[in-house]
Amino acid sequence: MAETDRKLSNGKSRIDFNTDPSRYRHWKLAVNGDVATLTMDVDEDAPLFEGYQLKLNSYDLGVDIELADALERLRFEHPAVRVVLLRSGKPRVFCAGANIRMLAGASHAHKVNFCKFTNETRNAIEDMSASSGLKTICVVTGSCAGGGYELALAADHIILVDDGSSTVSLPELPLLAVLPGTGGLTRVTDKRRVRRDHADVFCTTEEGVKGKRAVEWKLVDEVVPNSKLDDTVAARAKEFAAKSGRPVSAKGITLAPLEVKSTTQGREYKHVGVEITDRIATITLRGPAGVPPANPEALVAQGSAFWPLALARELDDAILDIRLNEFDVAAIVFKSAGDPAAVLAYDKFLDDNKDHWLTREIRLKWKRVLKRVDLTSRTLVTLVEPGSCFAGTLAELIFAADRAYMLVGQRDGDNRPPPQVVLGAVNFGAYPMSNGLTRLATRFLDDDASLAAAKKSIGQMLDADAAEELGLVTFALDDIDWEDEIRVFLEERSSFSPDGLTGLEANLRFGGPETMETKIFARLTAWQNWIFQRPNAVGEEGALRRYGTGQKAVFDTKRV
Amino acid sequence: MAETDRKLSNGKSRIDFNTDPSRYRHWKLAVNGDVATLTMDVDEDAPLFEGYQLKLNSYDLGVDIELADALERLRFEHPAVRVVLLRSGKPRVFCAGANIRMLAGASHAHKVNFCKFTNETRNAIEDMSASSGLKTICVVTGSCAGGGYELALAADHIILVDDGSSTVSLPELPLLAVLPGTGGLTRVTDKRRVRRDHADVFCTTEEGVKGKRAVEWKLVDEVVPNSKLDDTVAARAKEFAAKSGRPVSAKGITLAPLEVKSTTQGREYKHVGVEITDRIATITLRGPAGVPPANPEALVAQGSAFWPLALARELDDAILDIRLNEFDVAAIVFKSAGDPAAVLAYDKFLDDNKDHWLTREIRLKWKRVLKRVDLTSRTLVTLVEPGSCFAGTLAELIFAADRAYMLVGQRDGDNRPPPQVVLGAVNFGAYPMSNGLTRLATRFLDDDASLAAAKKSIGQMLDADAAEELGLVTFALDDIDWEDEIRVFLEERSSFSPDGLTGLEANLRFGGPETMETKIFARLTAWQNWIFQRPNAVGEEGALRRYGTGQKAVFDTKRV
Repeated sequence: MAETDRKLSNGKSRIDFNTDPSRYRHWKLAVNGDVATLTMDVDEDAPLFEGYQLKLNSYDLGVDIELADALERLRFEHPAVRVVLLRSGKPRVFCAGANIRMLAGASHAHKVNFCKFTNETRNAIEDMSASSGLKTICVVTGSCAGGGYELALAADHIILVDDGSSTVSLPELPLLAVLPGTGGLTRVTDKRRVRRDHADVFCTTEEGVKGKRAVEWKLVDEVVPNSKLDDTVAARAKEFAAKSGRPVSAKGITLAPLEVKSTTQGREYKHVGVEITDRIATITLRGPAGVPPANPEALVAQGSAFWPLALARELDDAILDIRLNEFDVAAIVFKSAGDPAAVLAYDKFLDDNKDHWLTREIRLKWKRVLKRVDLTSRTLVTLVEPGSCFAGTLAELIFAADRAYMLVGQRDGDNRPPPQVVLGAVNFGAYPMSNGLTRLATRFLDDDASLAAAKKSIGQMLDADAAEELGLVTFALDDIDWEDEIRVFLEERSSFSPDGLTGLEANLRFGGPETMETKIFARLTAWQNWIFQRPNAVGEEGALRRYGTGQKAVFDTKRV
Repeated sequence: MAETDRKLSNGKSRIDFNTDPSRYRHWKLAVNGDVATLTMDVDEDAPLFEGYQLKLNSYDLGVDIELADALERLRFEHPAVRVVLLRSGKPRVFCAGANIRMLAGASHAHKVNFCKFTNETRNAIEDMSASSGLKTICVVTGSCAGGGYELALAADHIILVDDGSSTVSLPELPLLAVLPGTGGLTRVTDKRRVRRDHADVFCTTEEGVKGKRAVEWKLVDEVVPNSKLDDTVAARAKEFAAKSGRPVSAKGITLAPLEVKSTTQGREYKHVGVEITDRIATITLRGPAGVPPANPEALVAQGSAFWPLALARELDDAILDIRLNEFDVAAIVFKSAGDPAAVLAYDKFLDDNKDHWLTREIRLKWKRVLKRVDLTSRTLVTLVEPGSCFAGTLAELIFAADRAYMLVGQRDGDNRPPPQVVLGAVNFGAYPMSNGLTRLATRFLDDDASLAAAKKSIGQMLDADAAEELGLVTFALDDIDWEDEIRVFLEERSSFSPDGLTGLEANLRFGGPETMETKIFARLTAWQNWIFQRPNAVGEEGALRRYGTGQKAVFDTKRV
């Protein structure tokens, strides 16, 4: 269940991450040549949960699910779009940020996972720009506050209308005693390069900044009077479009709705099975049934049914479903079923056609899904057993896991051959983690010899001993030990403090360098989560609870 | 007051950070030629607070204050020492880590600030190696658990005795539901380069790792049987000593006890005054009375009375005193009094003699003290007023502050000249922050033109308008606005949520790159602080509270 204390306002029992433009309540997506306009026009009477209204273009997870969907469709369904204009459909407000009543009433687990999803969505806007050449221009008219400004911060260019009342602001701290936690603090200093003392003033000034000072302090890129707004927006769109490398006249594919059935113990997608027992979710990824298409045209014809794309979308959905609907799950066990050679054939197809816009988008989709896996606060375990197909792209799930176990030899009474792992070139560059390194480079931090040895093995079928020798799996176990070892490990894991594990894994998974993205998920998010536990914010007399009640918050004055 | 709920066992009302070897209860410092031995032999009957014993070489802040003092003395009093051996004075235990009863009974504010101090002390061990050529070898005999192993991790080289029972372990998560938060998780992956899946196994294995596996997993550098321990330690000490650049026969100076008097509203040191009113602590740094010594020999003769060193030690003590004894202080206001030219003369002396071991140590001391300022979770404000001497080294306090205000012109009724700021070469390299950048480079992140303009101004007396123009101060205000603006700002700051400010400042102060050090203070510490708030650790049924009671902890199973 999503929440024990709140009801979804659509009457369902699970949060659904699937939507499409025909069902949007909060956004409008309009495409005109190479420019798309994404208009935020939140329906205040369509909150995700019962009990609050989404006034002033404020958002909850439901609003953000639509935004994330729109971004995916721009990538796949509209490959000729080069510039997205982010605009508001409300007259005097751009966006008031995350809905405060929603936050005040949400469980800690929902709040934290809501924030994570919104962060991933803003990162996807930046990835769209950096990797796909799809640029975003944010046109701020009206008040742009908190999460609203954090959304603007994800854009390549921010235009603020100079009408005497339109402002940008991060009023979280003075109003709510929480942080601008959706990347706000990090992007202000690390992306916009706002001077830290200016940032300090800005983030403690409830009413925000407007006009010339907003440009001087680098909070926006330009301020434009209303009379010149349309011309300026059109000119900027043209400039950014000219810099984009997106295909001029490519026709997109349609992202078909995911088909998923509930089962007694989980969910079944076409290529992904999820089974939950005893707080352990087992996700099985099924390899391709056939062979790759003959050429890119045939790929486009397959569209979203193309196995790697279908699998990525289903895995993404399965992970999100567990994150937000199954808080009790302690660990996710990844398994796979299929022919490693067939998986490698698909990787080869994507490699051979890597300059095609659609193969590029599919690889980028996998990059994002694998990052979502890395950032999922559940223990991740990969089991490499007979019949599995952890090759190339799918082998990333071995390296994303906190631990991987591989069976040595065959299983008693099972005549399938011993399992094998195969690396591909794809494991050495296509899927960087949010720290900027591949999963193998993170694994072998500064151990160039091990990384080189792994690379030399590309294409080789590695049995358990070879994989362990190369450092690719944690433990190679034979059939006699397998069942007990895995059972004891999973039971032990379920017995540990869930919070302790969240903290442990968040540290151990991200060795080495930090990027703006990891800073957002570590430095910023961890502090925000701490604040989300502190009485000064969430207690009965805390600012988040008292906001809008007319009563002032009462603070414990101790500085920690 | 340090704690409202606990009494210091020495009967005093404040934690005292001053000590010297003659007063140590927990450590022995022995110097033999170029090798020093620092032996941990904790007196279990001398805890800092009443109510617990320091069994099994476990530690509290009191133990760590002595360690920090010993490290300072090695730098200043024993310049010929090249290698420090970290050893245990107890037969079967190296160190059991932070005392659990102390942690379980400590306030959140004490716990967090205790951890910060221990982290700074371990960083100082690494800085000693990197900057001063003073290497540390940790000789692990017996059980080395939790914070004990985190201490070992700070060393350059870890020797583990191979006696069948000596182990290294990080059992915090399984035993206490908290993290190895004193740098443990970060150093395991980022310094020792332990593979992340091995680290996962290690950090969830209560009993730890010993013998060959400890080396294979890179947890220690070598395992040595008891029979060969003495020879190996002697050989390693010789090897590391040979690599050190410390002066061969230099005679040290004595770090005299700090003289500090309590006043009605604060504390008075020789060069530093502290005044606390309305939750604001004003720290005034007084410039030098005379001129620098004629040469390094005269400097050595002055010893710890040499103004820059005396000031650094006093400022350090004042900051620590506020951190651990004055939790209610919301903001620290830095002021200075003196002649900028006199300050610059001392900077010049240090520059002119920068190859002397003592000038180097004094600069490194300032580096550490300024880092301590950066990491202090209080709002930092610097006020540049008539009579101030924010020049060179002291100007760093302008850039360390969250905001700096500077008076334009003179003050009504005050015939002192308008205040001036002067930069020196020292502001462009000598004092990197923990992110590896200078404060000015952090301030002008990626804004090379502003950084270059600041550099060009070296030696120029800058009035408020010039300093504001160069981006060195946040606001230049004239006398008419000054008092109201500052008052309103400080009142407003005191009215905000202390937690929100801690999180805000921890983010805005550290733009740009991250280092192992900043990862420890951000990613690791912020997660640990979150866990220190979670009922699974600190609740009535939480693991930290129930440890040793015979009752199992009860966990909320939700994963966040």
